[in-house]
Amino acid sequence: MLSLPASLQKLIRELTKLPSIGEKSATRLAYHLVGGDRELAQSLSASLSEVVEQIKYCKRCFYFADEDNCRICNKTDRDDGLLCVVEKPADVMAIERMGEYRGLYHVLHGVWAPLRGKGPEQLKLKELLERVEKEKIKEIIMALSPTVEGDATSLYLAELLSNRGIILSRLAQGLPKGGELEYADDLTITRAFFGRNIFPAS
Amino acid sequence: MLSLPASLQKLIRELTKLPSIGEKSATRLAYHLVGGDRELAQSLSASLSEVVEQIKYCKRCFYFADEDNCRICNKTDRDDGLLCVVEKPADVMAIERMGEYRGLYHVLHGVWAPLRGKGPEQLKLKELLERVEKEKIKEIIMALSPTVEGDATSLYLAELLSNRGIILSRLAQGLPKGGELEYADDLTITRAFFGRNIFPAS
Repeated sequence: MLSLPASLQKLIRELTKLPSIGEKSATRLAYHLVGGDRELAQSLSASLSEVVEQIKYCKRCFYFADEDNCRICNKTDRDDGLLCVVEKPADVMAIERMGEYRGLYHVLHGVWAPLRGKGPEQLKLKELLERVEKEKIKEIIMALSPTVEGDATSLYLAELLSNRGIILSRLAQGLPKGGELEYADDLTITRAFFGRNIFPAS
Repeated sequence: MLSLPASLQKLIRELTKLPSIGEKSATRLAYHLVGGDRELAQSLSASLSEVVEQIKYCKRCFYFADEDNCRICNKTDRDDGLLCVVEKPADVMAIERMGEYRGLYHVLHGVWAPLRGKGPEQLKLKELLERVEKEKIKEIIMALSPTVEGDATSLYLAELLSNRGIILSRLAQGLPKGGELEYADDLTITRAFFGRNIFPAS
């Protein structure tokens, strides 16, 4: 490292701070940007500062937006009686990829994780309750990851939102599509068993 | 992707152009930069444009530099009778990491690869010959990768540089340290056999 010019060393250090990029990958990326594709380095730099400037969170659902509201909230053909609660913006994209869901979202920006110092007050919960008061929501789908923390948050939400005449649901748990029964863990098999569906009679 | 603000989509597209970063990793990196660590996004942007502006190649050895000459050529304690020829800047760093080599370098910026349209005229060969004329070089160590193209380039160089009273050497080939004989390929075993060293008598 010491033989490198200071600015290149700095770039490598910065790249190392990205998730799942160690020193070797960072060095390789830096070499690619400096040794080969300087145009990419330039446009990447511009793109990063543009993103920092422009991207904020939707004031209604807290997904990424470059205006007050995000592209999903701005659409007129979405069903505003249906609300899907997720942990983070990446989850919205995962559900949108499926292309089947036509309702709106609410991004909590975290789950209830006392051990990591994340209490209910750090989540966008107050904002969710405000939406429930203001908007005409018929069903809330809790789409949190089936982890201990995600499940705890779902239960907490279910209690908070009960007795309001809103249908509360959560994503099915079971065997992942394409996964082999042999390799599934016990808890997944348990869930799959107790959540089994009646096979449609042909 | 379509639900994302345009500038975020652009950042993801740019990141995908980096080596070994696919759409999934690019999306994860973009989310990290926008959703979490905006300071990093900002400093990364600044660092990239600084590098593009400042980094050029050493006029003597063609390694990365931010002045006319690189940090290695600028050092007074290096042995300028010893020249190590490598393919690319990353190779200099690999050898420097070892910490044992005290001579100088010459970066060819490629190897002779006619199938990929890389002829001798695309390499820093003319510049190497000029250095051989001007500088008092006693030994040239060819440290090119032991691939077909690297070996061909070494042979070509050896011919070009013969009859000048300079010692020509190249890196030893054999079993990699820590590798198991059982899994070594035939050619490596052959090289290791014919290049075997007399065991020091105790």
